[in-house]
Amino acid sequence: MAAIHTPALLAAGQPRPRNYPANQYAFRAKSHFLYFLGEGLPGAALLFARGTMTLFVVPEQPGDALWTGPRPTLTELATRHGVDSVRSIEDLPAALADAGANVATLPTEDAPSAAWLSDLLGRTVAPSTGNRLEDGTPDAALADALIAMRLTHDQAAIAQLRLAGAASASAHLAAMRATSGAKTEMEVFGALVGHLRSRGFQDSFAPIVSTHGEILHNETYEHALNPGDLLLCDAGAEAPEGWAGDITRVWPVSGHFSDTQRALYEAVLDVQLTAIAACRKGVRYRQVHEVAKRRTVERLRDLGIFRGELDGLLERGAAAVFLPHGVGHLLGLDVHDMEDLGDRAGYAPGRTRSAAFGDCYLRLDRDLQPGMAVTIEPGFYQVPAILSDDAYTGKLGGDLRRDVLAKYADVRGIRIEDDVLVTEGDPEILTKDVPKAPSEVEAIVRGGH
Amino acid sequence: MAAIHTPALLAAGQPRPRNYPANQYAFRAKSHFLYFLGEGLPGAALLFARGTMTLFVVPEQPGDALWTGPRPTLTELATRHGVDSVRSIEDLPAALADAGANVATLPTEDAPSAAWLSDLLGRTVAPSTGNRLEDGTPDAALADALIAMRLTHDQAAIAQLRLAGAASASAHLAAMRATSGAKTEMEVFGALVGHLRSRGFQDSFAPIVSTHGEILHNETYEHALNPGDLLLCDAGAEAPEGWAGDITRVWPVSGHFSDTQRALYEAVLDVQLTAIAACRKGVRYRQVHEVAKRRTVERLRDLGIFRGELDGLLERGAAAVFLPHGVGHLLGLDVHDMEDLGDRAGYAPGRTRSAAFGDCYLRLDRDLQPGMAVTIEPGFYQVPAILSDDAYTGKLGGDLRRDVLAKYADVRGIRIEDDVLVTEGDPEILTKDVPKAPSEVEAIVRGGH
Repeated sequence: MAAIHTPALLAAGQPRPRNYPANQYAFRAKSHFLYFLGEGLPGAALLFARGTMTLFVVPEQPGDALWTGPRPTLTELATRHGVDSVRSIEDLPAALADAGANVATLPTEDAPSAAWLSDLLGRTVAPSTGNRLEDGTPDAALADALIAMRLTHDQAAIAQLRLAGAASASAHLAAMRATSGAKTEMEVFGALVGHLRSRGFQDSFAPIVSTHGEILHNETYEHALNPGDLLLCDAGAEAPEGWAGDITRVWPVSGHFSDTQRALYEAVLDVQLTAIAACRKGVRYRQVHEVAKRRTVERLRDLGIFRGELDGLLERGAAAVFLPHGVGHLLGLDVHDMEDLGDRAGYAPGRTRSAAFGDCYLRLDRDLQPGMAVTIEPGFYQVPAILSDDAYTGKLGGDLRRDVLAKYADVRGIRIEDDVLVTEGDPEILTKDVPKAPSEVEAIVRGGH
Repeated sequence: MAAIHTPALLAAGQPRPRNYPANQYAFRAKSHFLYFLGEGLPGAALLFARGTMTLFVVPEQPGDALWTGPRPTLTELATRHGVDSVRSIEDLPAALADAGANVATLPTEDAPSAAWLSDLLGRTVAPSTGNRLEDGTPDAALADALIAMRLTHDQAAIAQLRLAGAASASAHLAAMRATSGAKTEMEVFGALVGHLRSRGFQDSFAPIVSTHGEILHNETYEHALNPGDLLLCDAGAEAPEGWAGDITRVWPVSGHFSDTQRALYEAVLDVQLTAIAACRKGVRYRQVHEVAKRRTVERLRDLGIFRGELDGLLERGAAAVFLPHGVGHLLGLDVHDMEDLGDRAGYAPGRTRSAAFGDCYLRLDRDLQPGMAVTIEPGFYQVPAILSDDAYTGKLGGDLRRDVLAKYADVRGIRIEDDVLVTEGDPEILTKDVPKAPSEVEAIVRGGH
C-alpha cells in the first residue's frame, strides 16, 4: 500500500472447467493472490484500501456441508491468514465504492474473472494483459509494486522454495529409480507424478519425460525406452502454498552413458556449473546467458564439433544451433515467475528481448540481487529443423563439422537444470539433492528401486 | 447430418491457462468433438456441411518444430481420422460462408472459444448453455442429434468404456494395496494417480480418497489414516480417446472391517447389487433410484436404525437422510455424460428433476436401452449437517433410532459404485475387475504390495 497511491484489488480467479462446468481442473489461485494469502480460495479477492487488507470470500452455499464439507467461518479465516478482516464477496461492490476511485487490479487468466473484474470496476480488464500494461496507469503501478516485492524472496519465501526444490529433487530420484523397470516414458512419468502427489505436491508445470529431449516442450509420454536412449526429465514440484521447483536431469536408460553421450553430458554439465558460478550479486543475467553460450561453443569446439575462433563462432550464431533457448528464468510462485506480466518482471526497465534466434527466448535480463531465485539450464540439442536450415547454420559453413557431429548421433537432447538462489556470497543451489555427476546418475539408475 | 437440417460446427476448445498463459492444464477437448475425432487437437474444429465432414486445424506455427516437435501434415491427419478433408483453421470463415446460413454449434467450456464462435457465427454463443438451449433452434437440434448418438454406445465406444473400466479397476487395486504402507490419504491418492499416469490414463474427474466419505465431493487428501478408519475412494480413468470410468470402493485402513462397518458395508453392497440387477432394457432409471432408496431403508430398518413401515418411512424422507444423492448417472466420454447440456441429455423430454431433497440430485431419468452405460452407486453417510437438521429428520421423529445409530459411529461414509452397460439381457459390469465382497477387499488391503 505504501508503494502505490490507489486502492488495489487482487482476485484469486475461478476454477477452470474441463469437459463440462462441474468437472474442473484442480484449482490454482493467481500467484499475486497466493503471495499474500498462501491459500487458494476460488472466487476470493483481496482488497487493499485505506490502510487495511480485506479478504472477500464466497460465502457458504446451500449444500456445501453435504458436498464439500463445512467451511471455516470468516473469523477463522481472518485468524488463519492475518488479514484485517474477512467479508462475503457479496459485500465487495459496496467496499469498492467506499474505497474510492482508480482501483488498480491485475486480471487472472480465466476470462470469467476478467469479465467479473470489468463489471466490478466499470472498465475493461482484459485477461493476460502482460506486456500491454500501460505505464502510468494504476494497474501498471500495482504490477510494479508486486514485481518489486516478488523479485527478491524473503526468508519465508526462501523456505518455501527450498521445500519445492527438495520435493522436485526427490521426484527426480524416484523417476531415475523407476527407469530400469520401465518400458515406456509414461511409466517413468507416472512414478514421478505419483511421488509428488503422494507427498502433497502438484506439478509446477506439465512434466517433460522424453527420449526426444530435442523437442523442448514435449508433453507426450508415448515413446518406448530403448537401452541406448537418454531420457530427459524436466519437472518440478509446486508446494501447497504455490511455490515452484524446476529441475532437469538426463540419464541413460541402460544406466550407462555411451562415450559420446558422456562427452556431451560432461560438456553441458561444465557449462551449467560455470553459469551457476556466475550467478552473483550485481551480475546482469544476460551476461550469465552469454557465459553459457560461450562455454557451450568452447566445449563443442574442444570435441571437434566446431572449429575456429570463439568470438567469430559466437557472432555467426554457433551457440543457438545447439542451445536455442535462454539459460534460465525467474523462479518463485510461478515457475516462470510473474510471466503473467509479460517481460515486465523478467526484463529491467529499458531492456528488451533480443531479436536474435536463441537469445529471443531469454526470459530474464535483470541484475541479480540477493534473494532472487533463477534457474540455470543450459543444454545441447540436435534439432533437425535447425540443423537442416541454412538460416541457422549457413554462416558457420564448414566450421560446423557435420562429420564429427555424426559421431554423436546417440544424443538427441541434453539439458541440466537447477534452481539457484542468489545470495550475498556464493549462490545456493535449491535443488542439490538430486545428483548430476554422470557416475552418480548412472549408479542411481542402475540401483533401481 | 441426416438428423439436422443445418450445417454444424463443433469446436475442440482451447487449453485452459493455469497461473499464466503459457502454463496450461493438460488439454482436454470437448467431448462432442472427441466423439467424432478420438484425438484432442487444441483450437481445432469440425464442420459438417453439404454432406462432408471437414477438420480445421491450427497450422504449424514458427518455432513449433523446436518447441513441440513436428506436426502431422494435413494429409496425414485426414488419413488418420477418416474425415473428408483437413484444412487450416484460417480457412474456416470462408468455409462457413460457403456452408450457408444457420450454422449450429455448441460452445466449449472455455470463454475464449465461446467468444471465437460468437465472432465466427455472428451471434452470441454463451459458454455452458446447458439447460438454456432454446427448443427449435439449430443449436438445440444439434444437441438433440448428439444426444441421440451418444446415449447408446456402439461397439467401438463399448470397447473404450471397457478399457476405461478396467484401468479404473486396476487403479483401485493399486490404491488398496498402497494403504497398508500409507500414513495419510495423499499417499494412497499418489499411488492411484501414479498408477493411472504410468499406463497413459488421465483422471476422468478429481479423485476422492478420503476417510471422510460423508463429504461427497471431498477433494483434499490431508487426513491421517487411522487403523479404525474406512477409506473411501471414488476415482476413474480417462482413456486416451477420452472415455471415462468411475468406481467407488471403500475399505478398512487396517484390512479388517469392524462388525458395525461390515454390517453397513454389506447393506450398501446389497442395495448396489439390487439396483444393478434392475438395470434392464426398458426400465426407467428413476425406478432404479427408487429401488435403491427402498432397499436402503429396508436394510437400515433390519439393522434397527429405522423402525416402522417402509412406505411411510420413504414418504417421510428416510432414504435421503443417509443416501442424499442420486443412485447414478450416464457414463460415456464425460463421467457425467453430456452434462455440458444440462439435463437435456440425462432427462427424457417431459421429465424434470424432483424438488425433493436427495432426489433433486438425480442426474438421470431416462428409460434404459441396450448400449446405455450408467453408474450404480448407492451409499450410506452420516452427514452432521443432515442428522442435526430437523428439516431432514424431523418427520421421522423417533423412527430414526439415534440410540442404534450411535453404535455405528465408526462409519462416516460408504459408497460402492460400478459402471454398468445395459444390454438386451443381463447388465454387463464394466468395472468388475476390482472386488467388492468384504472379505476379498480385506484380503487385498492386508496383502499390500
